Amino acid sequence: MSGQRSVTENIEALSQFGQLPDGSVTRLVYDDAWVAAMTWWLRQGQQQGMQATIDSYGNGFLTYPGSQSGTVAVGSHIDSVQHAGHYDGAYGIVAAQLAMTRLVARLGQPQRTMMAIAFSEEEGSRFPVSFTGSRHYSGVAETDDTLTDAKGVTFNDARQQAVQSLSEHFNQTEQALPDEFMELHIEQGPLLESTHDDIGVVSTICELEEFVVTLTGEANHAGTTPMHLRHDALMAAVQVISQLDEQAHQVGEPFVFTVGQLEVSPGSSNVIPGQVRFTIDIRHPQRRVVDEFEQVIRQLLADVNEVRVDLKRVTASYPEVRMDPRLMGQFEQICQQRGLAYRVMPSGAAHDTQMMNAKVPTAMLFVPSHRGISHSVAEYTSPEALENGVQVLMAQLYQECY
Amino acid sequence: MSGQRSVTENIEALSQFGQLPDGSVTRLVYDDAWVAAMTWWLRQGQQQGMQATIDSYGNGFLTYPGSQSGTVAVGSHIDSVQHAGHYDGAYGIVAAQLAMTRLVARLGQPQRTMMAIAFSEEEGSRFPVSFTGSRHYSGVAETDDTLTDAKGVTFNDARQQAVQSLSEHFNQTEQALPDEFMELHIEQGPLLESTHDDIGVVSTICELEEFVVTLTGEANHAGTTPMHLRHDALMAAVQVISQLDEQAHQVGEPFVFTVGQLEVSPGSSNVIPGQVRFTIDIRHPQRRVVDEFEQVIRQLLADVNEVRVDLKRVTASYPEVRMDPRLMGQFEQICQQRGLAYRVMPSGAAHDTQMMNAKVPTAMLFVPSHRGISHSVAEYTSPEALENGVQVLMAQLYQECY
Repeated sequence: MSGQRSVTENIEALSQFGQLPDGSVTRLVYDDAWVAAMTWWLRQGQQQGMQATIDSYGNGFLTYPGSQSGTVAVGSHIDSVQHAGHYDGAYGIVAAQLAMTRLVARLGQPQRTMMAIAFSEEEGSRFPVSFTGSRHYSGVAETDDTLTDAKGVTFNDARQQAVQSLSEHFNQTEQALPDEFMELHIEQGPLLESTHDDIGVVSTICELEEFVVTLTGEANHAGTTPMHLRHDALMAAVQVISQLDEQAHQVGEPFVFTVGQLEVSPGSSNVIPGQVRFTIDIRHPQRRVVDEFEQVIRQLLADVNEVRVDLKRVTASYPEVRMDPRLMGQFEQICQQRGLAYRVMPSGAAHDTQMMNAKVPTAMLFVPSHRGISHSVAEYTSPEALENGVQVLMAQLYQECY
Repeated sequence: MSGQRSVTENIEALSQFGQLPDGSVTRLVYDDAWVAAMTWWLRQGQQQGMQATIDSYGNGFLTYPGSQSGTVAVGSHIDSVQHAGHYDGAYGIVAAQLAMTRLVARLGQPQRTMMAIAFSEEEGSRFPVSFTGSRHYSGVAETDDTLTDAKGVTFNDARQQAVQSLSEHFNQTEQALPDEFMELHIEQGPLLESTHDDIGVVSTICELEEFVVTLTGEANHAGTTPMHLRHDALMAAVQVISQLDEQAHQVGEPFVFTVGQLEVSPGSSNVIPGQVRFTIDIRHPQRRVVDEFEQVIRQLLADVNEVRVDLKRVTASYPEVRMDPRLMGQFEQICQQRGLAYRVMPSGAAHDTQMMNAKVPTAMLFVPSHRGISHSVAEYTSPEALENGVQVLMAQLYQECY
């Protein structure tokens, strides 16, 4: 990864690992493409004089030791969802390395150590668990080694085999936590594009709760069961979702409410649905708002009579995630100095920063996502917009490390 | 099938063919259980002195020739859905044979020919087509021979192999149409049980239309896309279905409106649904009411702006199906004479009688279904209720044939 290559060129080089014929990327944690991508990223850093190591989860670390004490880390994740675009996660690890490379090329050794991190896994696309890389490194939680992927391979077997491959080329060691952590990421939403801002300075990462609702009525013949004798689980679900949507709009922006999954059983055109199972995903920067909407959900479901109701909370509560005011303030100042339009905004999506935030001060920057599209081959951010983010990150690293 | 055995005992004997460990029956057209069941049913008739034949679709016919001209046919279908109960279709073919056996045992040769028919297929559970038996026999339509089942076997291959097996034991010939056709069937709905009636005298078979609606919005990240910038296909579907349900209730009984199938794509809890596809099934005895509701659907969908809308009509219109007033009147008289509580009612479900009705006068009787449950191992009608239906059918056959 040369200083001469642009951030976009580097992202495209990384996207070769796991790329499918349609241009999308499937690079799941510990698979062959993942090992090749991590090897490539660490090798590029070594060629720029950085120290490359991995830890027991396969998190990758590139380090420029400083002349004095203290460490500033910057990073994101190297894995992808199925049929991903080229930018999610990849931008953050490429930008971290590029910013460090350029600073050292111009200014030599920093006073504080600079470290780029490529977290092994964030997307939860192979095993039924996510953020395993940053949860391990931050010390928030270890992962259940017995979890299996769709083919029955355990997390432990996959992890050990991948780490074994990497440790043939790179030292394996558990790295200490840095003094602060920063992440550069595409927005994955349409806000910055719609407001014509160049940079989003993240204030908080949204509080998120996910629920699964199961409504159980009675399946019956669609032609012979009069309307007033039905226990139609789908009609009950439609009423509940419609009312929740109305309530969600009353809460107002930036609250978001999504039913992304809904399954009807038995699912025949001429059978009244006996059971419907659907998910609810709610997010807001303030825990209080999320908790209040949970109460709305519970009250609304308690009023359902036609069918039996079951509500399960899926999410584990994480500690509140507010970005560090000092680092945020410096980001804002840098944008002002450079004439970049910026917006202080919450992050609706969860990020590795959320895990690091439990242990160290953190900050996070967004660049615009064209049409807000993410987790798709249509994911796109212009080279200029990507470079803006790198410039702001470099200025911040300069202030923090030189 | 002996005159000494009750209708329930005969139904249980037939349910052995295709019975699964949980007690449910899967007897799909032309499969091994189907061939064994048809062989058993025809053999039982032969032992009572009936002539047994099959036609090129594997429809089974049992005949007592009359001393004079004219033929009265009674029947139903021998195939089942997947994991079916014991009564749907089976009751009608067992009852037809039993009624004829008892009448001949008591009264000897009839004046008009009596014929029991076991239609090969009505349920549409193996090939993507239904009523193939009665559509062939009635001359309403032949079936596309190239249709395949889930394993890739063509309708033609399955049909020829099954008919070949049967023709080793039974004469194969195309039977002429009868002068009238009657069918005895379980209600498959809860109405008779709830009104404490013994018999339903069917007036019409409901007009039925089925539609598939596809709503296409834009899939996007559930956390990062503000509510006002979404094109959520599921929320659009929820609004449409909720309004249609309200309109359907305004039409009033016996109109029925069902959304039995609904699929969400991509179907992840943290992704806004980009596409939703759902079915609409509407039924009413009068064509006018069904047509008017089709206009309600079209108007409502025309008002949807947030997402793209596609509406497809799935059903082919069949001719209107009114039962023969003379046969209906005789059924009512017989019930009155015997002190049986009866109700004149439309059939919400489609039946073989619908196909026969295109060519000859028809009539149809229902007996109560416990809790209205059908297409399930929980399908149940008491021995007394089943025998009531046989008694009414016998009295009708006596009037028509002796």
